[in-house]
Amino acid sequence: MTDVLSYRPKPDELSYTFGGREPVRRVSPGTVLELYTEDCFGGQVRGVDDLPSRVCDLSSLNPVTGPFHVEGAEPGDTLAVHFVSIEPARDWAISSTFPHFGALTGTHTTAMLHAPLEERVWVYDVDVAAGIVRYHARRGEYTVEMPLDPMHGTVGVAPGASEVRMTITPDVHGGNMDTPELRAGVTTYFGVNVPGALFALGDGHCRQGHGEVCGTAVEAAMNTTVIVDLIKGVGTPVPRLETDAALMSTGSARPLEDAYRISQHDLVTWTADLVGLDTLDAYQLISQAGEAPVGNVCDPNYTMVAKLDKRYLGGVSAYEGVHARLRDAAAVYLAGR
Amino acid sequence: MTDVLSYRPKPDELSYTFGGREPVRRVSPGTVLELYTEDCFGGQVRGVDDLPSRVCDLSSLNPVTGPFHVEGAEPGDTLAVHFVSIEPARDWAISSTFPHFGALTGTHTTAMLHAPLEERVWVYDVDVAAGIVRYHARRGEYTVEMPLDPMHGTVGVAPGASEVRMTITPDVHGGNMDTPELRAGVTTYFGVNVPGALFALGDGHCRQGHGEVCGTAVEAAMNTTVIVDLIKGVGTPVPRLETDAALMSTGSARPLEDAYRISQHDLVTWTADLVGLDTLDAYQLISQAGEAPVGNVCDPNYTMVAKLDKRYLGGVSAYEGVHARLRDAAAVYLAGR
Amino acid sequence: MTDVLSYRPKPDELSYTFGGREPVRRVSPGTVLELYTEDCFGGQVRGVDDLPSRVCDLSSLNPVTGPFHVEGAEPGDTLAVHFVSIEPARDWAISSTFPHFGALTGTHTTAMLHAPLEERVWVYDVDVAAGIVRYHARRGEYTVEMPLDPMHGTVGVAPGASEVRMTITPDVHGGNMDTPELRAGVTTYFGVNVPGALFALGDGHCRQGHGEVCGTAVEAAMNTTVIVDLIKGVGTPVPRLETDAALMSTGSARPLEDAYRISQHDLVTWTADLVGLDTLDAYQLISQAGEAPVGNVCDPNYTMVAKLDKRYLGGVSAYEGVHARLRDAAAVYLAGR
Amino acid sequence: MTDVLSYRPKPDELSYTFGGREPVRRVSPGTVLELYTEDCFGGQVRGVDDLPSRVCDLSSLNPVTGPFHVEGAEPGDTLAVHFVSIEPARDWAISSTFPHFGALTGTHTTAMLHAPLEERVWVYDVDVAAGIVRYHARRGEYTVEMPLDPMHGTVGVAPGASEVRMTITPDVHGGNMDTPELRAGVTTYFGVNVPGALFALGDGHCRQGHGEVCGTAVEAAMNTTVIVDLIKGVGTPVPRLETDAALMSTGSARPLEDAYRISQHDLVTWTADLVGLDTLDAYQLISQAGEAPVGNVCDPNYTMVAKLDKRYLGGVSAYEGVHARLRDAAAVYLAGR
Repeated sequence: MTDVLSYRPKPDELSYTFGGREPVRRVSPGTVLELYTEDCFGGQVRGVDDLPSRVCDLSSLNPVTGPFHVEGAEPGDTLAVHFVSIEPARDWAISSTFPHFGALTGTHTTAMLHAPLEERVWVYDVDVAAGIVRYHARRGEYTVEMPLDPMHGTVGVAPGASEVRMTITPDVHGGNMDTPELRAGVTTYFGVNVPGALFALGDGHCRQGHGEVCGTAVEAAMNTTVIVDLIKGVGTPVPRLETDAALMSTGSARPLEDAYRISQHDLVTWTADLVGLDTLDAYQLISQAGEAPVGNVCDPNYTMVAKLDKRYLGGVSAYEGVHARLRDAAAVYLAGR
Repeated sequence: MTDVLSYRPKPDELSYTFGGREPVRRVSPGTVLELYTEDCFGGQVRGVDDLPSRVCDLSSLNPVTGPFHVEGAEPGDTLAVHFVSIEPARDWAISSTFPHFGALTGTHTTAMLHAPLEERVWVYDVDVAAGIVRYHARRGEYTVEMPLDPMHGTVGVAPGASEVRMTITPDVHGGNMDTPELRAGVTTYFGVNVPGALFALGDGHCRQGHGEVCGTAVEAAMNTTVIVDLIKGVGTPVPRLETDAALMSTGSARPLEDAYRISQHDLVTWTADLVGLDTLDAYQLISQAGEAPVGNVCDPNYTMVAKLDKRYLGGVSAYEGVHARLRDAAAVYLAGR
Repeated sequence: MTDVLSYRPKPDELSYTFGGREPVRRVSPGTVLELYTEDCFGGQVRGVDDLPSRVCDLSSLNPVTGPFHVEGAEPGDTLAVHFVSIEPARDWAISSTFPHFGALTGTHTTAMLHAPLEERVWVYDVDVAAGIVRYHARRGEYTVEMPLDPMHGTVGVAPGASEVRMTITPDVHGGNMDTPELRAGVTTYFGVNVPGALFALGDGHCRQGHGEVCGTAVEAAMNTTVIVDLIKGVGTPVPRLETDAALMSTGSARPLEDAYRISQHDLVTWTADLVGLDTLDAYQLISQAGEAPVGNVCDPNYTMVAKLDKRYLGGVSAYEGVHARLRDAAAVYLAGR
Repeated sequence: MTDVLSYRPKPDELSYTFGGREPVRRVSPGTVLELYTEDCFGGQVRGVDDLPSRVCDLSSLNPVTGPFHVEGAEPGDTLAVHFVSIEPARDWAISSTFPHFGALTGTHTTAMLHAPLEERVWVYDVDVAAGIVRYHARRGEYTVEMPLDPMHGTVGVAPGASEVRMTITPDVHGGNMDTPELRAGVTTYFGVNVPGALFALGDGHCRQGHGEVCGTAVEAAMNTTVIVDLIKGVGTPVPRLETDAALMSTGSARPLEDAYRISQHDLVTWTADLVGLDTLDAYQLISQAGEAPVGNVCDPNYTMVAKLDKRYLGGVSAYEGVHARLRDAAAVYLAGR
């Protein structure tokens, strides 16, 4: 029988870093976690007049739920987190520009002498039953529906080398990768750096364009269910994702070509290892068959994903089939809900 | 009645630059061009022992067919080139590594002290009827089919400011953008810099992964049909693409985030203009609805594409509907072939 | 009368992070600290056969001495650290290549398929009295003297936002900036992020080329004396340096142009503020008078320095003259030693 | 006896590209050229109200004097150009901001949604006898003297591969490198790509800060004397400079770390070749002894210089001593003037 843990953090239980925090709960591999995650504004932006720089405490942006200590996880293992479902918790969601944040504005690192762009908030209608969100222009009457496509921007484990990182930063421990590929049905893999792995997640998006060009997505609190599992004695160099149809490697770095290089390099060497190809043969295979979905081009590190359809793998399975098992477990859980 | 020009360049008619060449033919807007393009190796690599650095004259890589002088084209106009069909001319195609070229190797600009990676050639089987290409590993027996998805890596016009650029380099005039989005059914738009526009194309790919990570795609000679048209008095700042379903802007630059920025910036301002949104409202719309297909991460400039589904445009047409008209003309042509 | 604290860390007192550590000592502003710092290899590399990847524990690279809690330091203040003297502690020093580290090699972020460059160790003779170090080629007999020019690669305070960063990484809190400008006679300024500031330093170099291109300098344990001071209620956005002759701002980021931008942006706005210029007038002044010494082009963030000769400041002083006062205090201390 | 050619281009003789132009004169190796170069604004900006975007024809920015056909120069040779003297032709000089140009502003490639920074012109007083230029703030009364330190921003030869490049762009053929190292007393070396080399120069600066951060230097027309010479059968991969005291390699690329890599890579391999070191030993030597003066961080490619004091070369000469011979010839010429 499956353990199920339901957990909704109180405001003072939210985390703003990966690492440096005591776990909020301890769970066994195989546990189903029914979680609530707050939006990236800490729920403080509720209308077009709530400018984030005014209503948000800047040290309290991008809260995550967790961390969770997974029993038995040790450095050198891999944590698998399967996303069973991601459901918006409200019938509205928020996006905004933010001073000196985004891809088409000067920032604190791409430092320029321009005044910041106008800070502006957009409120989206969210209709989970219909599967849509609705955009409203702030100047003029234009409005349009977009498909609901829920995802989590921020997922990860405690970093290695005793580091503690703000949740806004993606790196090899995961974090704020902001890839739309991280939706329900996906299994994510993280190399474990500390005992218990200390997994946390947050920053739900009703949907997101590629690169999150203005710096924020359709930001929403989420009711999200995941199943955690553990692959002992197998490392994972960068966060990876798996769906029924594809394998994915991530890379988070600057400049953007390095994020691309990290993700493609990992996909090439992982594929070589799985299929039994030599490195250049795998390089060639990925060169023609590989995809490269853009994650974010706005966070402290940019994120790229390298993706390969499983049809090119000759039938082999990654991580000894853990994704399929978690998928089955998710189906059983959902059927019984 | 439509003018049709069939043209197959003799070897000494091939071009290796955009700009700096007399036109090979003069055509009127509306003309259908049935063209032959040689592969990026000039057809010199025909088997696994034909190492490109040995069999190719390095000054004769990436030949293009053209340039074509389009009657009436003047600086400030936009040239529209609709791709009617792109068909591999042979039943085999080539890919290879090349010394100091590609995304996962030191290059002449990302200069490193490593010896080059091994130069290796892969020969693909091409089956147009079945719609597949077949990959064969060079070490071991692994082989797999991939869908045929023909495209052109290199398309463009003569640059402005009297410049002449090698065909290998993508920039605002087009060139070697290497985006898989440039397939049959697409209309491409280029700002005209010189009288006649001087359009040329080449570098056919049977298919290509995102970023062309090893530096080459499944390279093939092509029989390609395009229709050219002219939009007078309307400029186009960067190469754009249109399909029945989407608008696209391109950006070619280094680092890769600048290619992303150029493409997204153009899509934001173009969308604002088409839909009648203010800039920040368009920025927000693209942030949630925009896609960012990677072109190349290996050429002298990297290329990113910014893409927007037309469903978000509220029914407006770009360039006064020229894409739809060319699509119809293509259908008439194909029906009569 | 000046407080003097002499402190030589025991091996288990060394720190490998900024942040996340209890202070080793508490000191008052004005205290002279006579410190010993170990080299970046933790003193484990002592000859050409001691390959760092073999003899060093990778989690124990780049140790720093500290952190020191400075009484009264609060977030929003500025910590001033004046470098009185930096003296090599041994008559030899070490440099080396290191697998996948350096500017002319593939790394974990600029990920490539090349095997690592050869790992090789060079031992330098250090003659403090003569003021020289001696290079010996490892293949062949070539040898040459270079001027001794001691500096610290790693200096900083605890980061904000509860972060903990490896000492190898430079950022707004300081860290491994690896700039040759950080030599004796310099006052460094850091914005305080946590009570007590938690200052630490290490990674002494007998000298270093611009950019530290191979990844390591002429690495040495040092006997270093600093005086700490506090500027209450005045913030400092990025680490700054001051000499008798010049002001300097630093920037640490990737790509390298962003490190340049951060440093130049801070120097422009700082100069505008000090001299009473409007921003564009200061931008112009720096454009013609500013220097840009390269720090490192090999660490997780790259570092650039923006430097302005004080002759262009019209006689104004930064931080109300604290550098001059610390310089005087250093002279008194040195005279009495 | 030395040939001396005095040449002052008529306005319609100015060049705006490298490549694509017939030579204005043919000269023999050893010829002294007494040249006039116009400023980067084509002399059109003469006061603070002459905004460049209004008074300049944008296709006529950054004119160069030349090209000169050097008799006997063939691809594979090296052209040596020794700078005998660089003297401002007027008692005033100009700097300005320019819309979407510079390091601390959004540009056409680092594309942003900000309105351009204010376009503003500064007029400098130039006193050649006193060796100073004088800066005047535009808002307020602040003014300050800076040393005159004349240099040329733009020097180069025709590119290879039939390319024609705008003078604004630096690349392996030279061009707009904008390095303050290019002053009188320097010998520059360029690999020859076309018969006659087709050397040209322009864009004189009374002085320039490191990186030319606002996009322009203290721009001036110049009376400049050079001596050209030819090194047959010896190639030069990137532009190099030599003074009595140092060797320098340049790199022009984006991102800035690639410009750094190119320049350091060339200096490492050049030093290895000259001194007879193996590559890693030269890498180590440059790592500790090399300098990295920043050229520009604002042009279409950024430029870095890698510099090595000749004291580290063990007495060997580059290019068989051509610099010393040209230096002597310059002294003879200057004595006879």
